Amino acid sequence: MNRPPPHASTVAPGGTIGILGGGQLGRMIAIAATQLGFRTHVFCHAVDDPAAQVAAAVTIAGFDDTAALNKFAQDCDAVTLEFENIPIRAIDQIASVKPMRPSSRALEVAQDRVTEKEFVTQAGIQTAAYQPVDNAAELEAAFRDLGERIVVKTRRLGYDGKGQVWITHADEVADAWAALGGVPSIAEVAVNFTTEISVISARGADGVMATYVPVENRHVNGILDRTFAPAPIQRQVADRAVAIAETLAVELDIVGLLAVEMFVTGDNRLLVNEIAPRPHNSGHWTIDACAVDQFEQLVRAAAGWPLGDPSRHSDAEMHNLIGADVERWADLVSEPRACLHLYGKKEIRAGRKMGHVTYLADIA
Amino acid sequence: MNRPPPHASTVAPGGTIGILGGGQLGRMIAIAATQLGFRTHVFCHAVDDPAAQVAAAVTIAGFDDTAALNKFAQDCDAVTLEFENIPIRAIDQIASVKPMRPSSRALEVAQDRVTEKEFVTQAGIQTAAYQPVDNAAELEAAFRDLGERIVVKTRRLGYDGKGQVWITHADEVADAWAALGGVPSIAEVAVNFTTEISVISARGADGVMATYVPVENRHVNGILDRTFAPAPIQRQVADRAVAIAETLAVELDIVGLLAVEMFVTGDNRLLVNEIAPRPHNSGHWTIDACAVDQFEQLVRAAAGWPLGDPSRHSDAEMHNLIGADVERWADLVSEPRACLHLYGKKEIRAGRKMGHVTYLADIA
Repeated sequence: MNRPPPHASTVAPGGTIGILGGGQLGRMIAIAATQLGFRTHVFCHAVDDPAAQVAAAVTIAGFDDTAALNKFAQDCDAVTLEFENIPIRAIDQIASVKPMRPSSRALEVAQDRVTEKEFVTQAGIQTAAYQPVDNAAELEAAFRDLGERIVVKTRRLGYDGKGQVWITHADEVADAWAALGGVPSIAEVAVNFTTEISVISARGADGVMATYVPVENRHVNGILDRTFAPAPIQRQVADRAVAIAETLAVELDIVGLLAVEMFVTGDNRLLVNEIAPRPHNSGHWTIDACAVDQFEQLVRAAAGWPLGDPSRHSDAEMHNLIGADVERWADLVSEPRACLHLYGKKEIRAGRKMGHVTYLADIA
Repeated sequence: MNRPPPHASTVAPGGTIGILGGGQLGRMIAIAATQLGFRTHVFCHAVDDPAAQVAAAVTIAGFDDTAALNKFAQDCDAVTLEFENIPIRAIDQIASVKPMRPSSRALEVAQDRVTEKEFVTQAGIQTAAYQPVDNAAELEAAFRDLGERIVVKTRRLGYDGKGQVWITHADEVADAWAALGGVPSIAEVAVNFTTEISVISARGADGVMATYVPVENRHVNGILDRTFAPAPIQRQVADRAVAIAETLAVELDIVGLLAVEMFVTGDNRLLVNEIAPRPHNSGHWTIDACAVDQFEQLVRAAAGWPLGDPSRHSDAEMHNLIGADVERWADLVSEPRACLHLYGKKEIRAGRKMGHVTYLADIA
């Protein structure tokens, strides 16, 4: 795999941070970059994308538009990204012109659920038992091998519960395979967990890391609904979770952020579920509850700056505003210690992340 | 004076907040508006002004360009401002098209130091003894009447210690008058204070107020250097300071923010020094230490939303980065609990506000 270029370059205030992707994560990266005195340039699909609304410059193009990518890279002093499903070719093209942080290495791993599981396993870290499945017969065998309840996910491009099917009876295999579109997939045993947690580690170009406290995540319909910071888990379990995230960040040699989702089992084992080399929904609470939030850490890493203090001044509970939830904005805005964030998306759609609200509390 | 239009209108998320002025205050207003899901449109002088860099739309024009003002107002759903020295005519023109918050009433008062002092006095609130002076003879008389040490300020357009001269001997009068450019001015007795404080009140279109804790301000060369939140003053003094700010906000019928600078004397009297109907440098700490900061309150007021919770989760100390101070950014970024803000100004000039850093601390 490709190694990132040397991390020597540092972008001074006034320089331009490029952001690949125009969604709410890109928007929050752009705000963080602005607060540090940078100019921003967003590469995205449409001029009214959430991030484009706040950028100093916008390039509207596809990731296969090499001329646009080159021009964009020329205008930037360093480039980062808001999501992992960007073609590796585009990432490497930018990296050949300007510092690209994170590099394609982390994306290659995160873009394919089988590669990701193999990477985690090779790092000596546990995951749920899994099997790659390329056809219905392999899926049937996997269901037989893995246990009474499995989840099958497409290897690529799934998010927010999309591209996932549960199987609890052998006679569901054919329908499941059809529902997934018959694309290369991964079958995983259903984990009997007590808590879903995540840890977000930032890693600078100098290799120094800053890791946020583990948080608990609760999902509804496969989409993150609420995050509780800190997670209500034992101190030793939290320490192990942090160590796992930091180990994986080092193994990937990531410059930027690594979010690691884990299951905590009844006997306090930790199983890695997913990793994401980018800002994570479960880290939005850091905007309001930490001295330096996840987005600013990513900008600092991209710019070659030292990371900031990830300590929290408050405990926090983050509620996503999904679809029509956002229509409650007028009730949410004047609640005590409520910090409202809306993403500037014009159209409300079911399952669409429209905003979030973070409630602060004194540290328990 | 003109009354603001009825406050009925509310701007929903996705609407456009107009901002008059492109400096760092406008930049931070734009960021706050973005976080609430608004689109922003900045009316300013140059395309690389700090606020223009983060706005969805920018109008580059002067405040005497009625066509540009009209077109700008048409594009916005509500308009606010970052500084008080905008021609009243421009404010009223916008107010005739869209909700303008604050209205010209507060600006008329704040644009002229004599009008301001008269307004405060008429509200039953103390200021330092003062006299309007329109010529050198009047200044000489004022120096005789007011005491051993006076400060003379131009009635209009002074800021950050500009347009101010101190007089301690009668033979300095002629030079002082010349230094001020011979424009209408105000002579004020020098106050022997123990502490300089300020209070920022937000007032919504519904008349509800949210007021931040009084803070101490220390100036160097007439420019704010540091703010300490909360101010180290007695509880009863702080309560009176809050009451003064809220009284003045109501008297002005302001929709937006009112910052009130006061002197605390050795015998705990409070003398109002200046008022500003806009975000204030002494409120920058609220970005990092409060659930809802001064900029978001202004956006909420402008949009006709309820105000947010102004409570603080941390004590804070804010250091301005003036001129070459900003070159220390690399040392500041990794200090514990430090929150760095840079304003995207390309050129470093002596006395120019380039950024600030807020240090958080547990509430004492």
